This record gives sequence, C-alpha cells and structure tokens, in this order.
Amino acid sequence: MTYCVGLRLDRGLVFMSDTRTNAGVDNFSKTRKMFHWGVPGERLITLMTAGNLATTQALVSLIEERVKAVSDRDPSILRAPSMFQVARMVGSTLKEVIAQSAPVGQSGDAAFQATVILGGQIQGSPPTMFLIYPDGFVIEVTSETPFFLIGETKYGRPILVRAYDAHMRFEDAVKLLLVSFDSTVRSNLSVAPPFDLMVYESDAYAPRLDRRIEQDDAVYQSISSGWGDALRRAFDQLPTFDL
Amino acid sequence: MTYCVGLRLDRGLVFMSDTRTNAGVDNFSKTRKMFHWGVPGERLITLMTAGNLATTQALVSLIEERVKAVSDRDPSILRAPSMFQVARMVGSTLKEVIAQSAPVGQSGDAAFQATVILGGQIQGSPPTMFLIYPDGFVIEVTSETPFFLIGETKYGRPILVRAYDAHMRFEDAVKLLLVSFDSTVRSNLSVAPPFDLMVYESDAYAPRLDRRIEQDDAVYQSISSGWGDALRRAFDQLPTFDL
Repeated sequence: MTYCVGLRLDRGLVFMSDTRTNAGVDNFSKTRKMFHWGVPGERLITLMTAGNLATTQALVSLIEERVKAVSDRDPSILRAPSMFQVARMVGSTLKEVIAQSAPVGQSGDAAFQATVILGGQIQGSPPTMFLIYPDGFVIEVTSETPFFLIGETKYGRPILVRAYDAHMRFEDAVKLLLVSFDSTVRSNLSVAPPFDLMVYESDAYAPRLDRRIEQDDAVYQSISSGWGDALRRAFDQLPTFDL
Repeated sequence: MTYCVGLRLDRGLVFMSDTRTNAGVDNFSKTRKMFHWGVPGERLITLMTAGNLATTQALVSLIEERVKAVSDRDPSILRAPSMFQVARMVGSTLKEVIAQSAPVGQSGDAAFQATVILGGQIQGSPPTMFLIYPDGFVIEVTSETPFFLIGETKYGRPILVRAYDAHMRFEDAVKLLLVSFDSTVRSNLSVAPPFDLMVYESDAYAPRLDRRIEQDDAVYQSISSGWGDALRRAFDQLPTFDL
C-alpha cells in the first residue's frame, strides 16, 4: 500500500508521503512517492503517487521527459497555463500508461491502477490541489474537502477530520500529519517511515521545506510515543458511561 | 458494512455492534447484529455478525432452532462442554450456510460471506472470545490480541490500539467503544447508531448490562461532540515540529 496526504491551508499546502513499496509481505523496499517540478518565481508543482509502482514510475518518467528543456517535447506541465490544465495533463498521461499495460497483461483486478495527488501554484492563481483517478478524472480541493488522502487512507483519517483547521500553522499541520501517519504505520505493515515532507507557502513558487523525516527523527519519535498518553488523558476528560 | 467490537478485560467481556444494514446507499435499514443465549448460572454465549444478511440470519436461525428445548435437536450450543466447542459448532454452521448459498447463486466475489465474533463463559472455564471466519476457522482471543473487530474495522482501530487496557473498568471500556464507534460512523455511511451493548462480568452467567444506545443518548452525544475538543487539547500537548 502507501499513505500520502495533501492538505490545503490558508497559508499554503503541505504534502506528506510514506516510502514503503511491497509486493507481498516478503518483498518490500523503499521508494520515493513525492516529486516536484518548478520554475523559480513562477510555478511549483508537487505530485504524490499511490498504486502500482510500474505505473507510477512510468507516469513520473513521462512527465520528467516532457519537462526537459526541449521545446518540441510538449505538452509540458511547465508550460501549462493553469494548475487545472496541469492536472488534466497528468490525468491523461496516467490513463495512457494504465491503458498501455492493460491489454497485454491485466486480468481481473485493477493491478495496474494508480492514484495521484497533485498540488501547487502557478503565478496569477492561488495554490490548489487535485486528486487524480486512474481513469484520468480530476477532483479539485474545496473548502468542504480541504485535503486528499490516497493509499491506506482509513486509519489516519479520523484524526484529520477532527483536528484539521484551515487556519492552522504549518508546524501544527506537520504535527497533525505525523500523528495521522503514525496511526497508519501502527496498523498496516505496508505503510512505513521515512516520510517525505514538503511545505509550500503561498506565492513563494519554491518549497519552504522539502525534507525526509526518518524513523529515528526525535520529534517524530516523541510524537509517536507521546500520542498514546495524550490520547488517554483526552479520553479521561470525556464523560463516563454509567452502567 | 457493519462495525462490531468484542473486548476481553480482566473483569469480563464487552460487546458492541452497530445496527445498519444496506444494499447500496439508496437501500438501507436497521437490523440487530448481536444475539445471546444462555443457561442462567451455567453459561452465557454472545454472538455478533458482519457480512451478508441472508447468511447471518440463517446462521442465527439455525442456532436458535437447535437451542430450542427438544432433546433430539443436537448439536446445541447450550449443551457443548466448552466455549471452544461452541465456536467450532458455530463455525461449521456458518460454513454450511455459505456452502448452501454458493453453488446456486454465487459468482465471483465473496457475496455470501460473513464473519462472527463469539464470546461468553461456561461454568468451569474463564470467559473467552473467538473470531470465526467464513471458512469455519476459529481464532481465540489472547493477551496479545485481546479484542476482535469485524466489518469496517479500520477507522476505529487506532484509538483501541492506543487506549485499551485489560485492567480498565467496564465504564471506561464502554466509553472507549463509543469513541471508536463514533470515529467509524463519521467516516462510513454504512455504519450507524443505534448501537447494541452488552457487558458481561466474569462468573455471572448472565449479562450485567444489555441495552441499546440510541443516536440521541446523552452520554453518546457528549462523547461524540467532546472528543474533537479533547483530541485538539491532546494534540496541543505534543511537541511541535519546527520548520
């Protein structure tokens, strides 16, 4: 599996992805699932992937080839006029990659499927984020749906639903994501640290922070070990159900 | 879907189940998923079901018929010598029900599947609990795996993993279950109140509490609305991730 979350805040965007990839529990490895491309001062585009690794790697390679500075290599996400057009391009590339795999090998289940979270900003418009389905459909973030999750999305969702706030500081958003990722890691072996983190502040057109959080990161460790106690204290504050 | 949890505590057993049943989002209804049979002072057996309603109703009807006081209607769970034998009987009945449906109608996916949590106590042995799979397999609760979840198990698991404690009071266990159920209800339309609750105290051979918690129950409402605030306070206590 995989776990990736993209949050839209008033201040900008925050992305986090895990790095585990596996084909069965006896065959697992580490892979990057977060990628970004940009034109300094003009646009920054971040992409996170979940699904079949062959599909997501092909998707990223195709995008990568097309952003190389050769003018006939269009369509390039670096020349698209809006994030919506970038999302449509990524969607059609994803659909194309899946379609190429399907006729020769696919049988039965959705083995070549992948899902993408795409976010960023192009000068002239506010930052935004899209969820891209294997069929190429794109869904944009809204104030009612201010974050997207892909992969193993269930264990980490309740805390996001409860504690997310569009006004929150980046520091708190990262803390929230670490709690959500920790809940997921504890319940599903196919999601694991290190985590890739990118913080994007509106109108910066460059990452404010782009780093990897390792398993032994001191803050992650203290959040992970402190959350149980904090939860139990929270729990004690609730009214009791008398028998 | 469905959500049922059975907890084994030092003091006894606690069971909670939701009541929603559905065939698509446009066709939903309310049904009981928790059942119990007993011999006062000698045994109490509680069963919760998740899965195809035709299968689970047939299972319960068969068990029900066989416990009716006609001596030739064996095998009856009221005469089995141990909870393990009860679990095996229920497992083989479940397997039989599924097998009867399968050849005539089933195609492809596991449409007639069902899963069961069975718990209780028979005089002479401590209380125990089993998870019963559609194939008839039974898994017994242990100190490392002191609770079982069936149905939509993912949203509500993290809080159980973090806050469960075998020594906890029944009141706290019920509060914990209400938090876990509330997290699930908020994320999946196929799980909904009212909830059925049974508390079984060791060596009582009768329910300590057997009641339905309605959507508008005052304690459930205040736990549901208070948990968000309590979580946010817990969250504020965690160390901050500096950018």
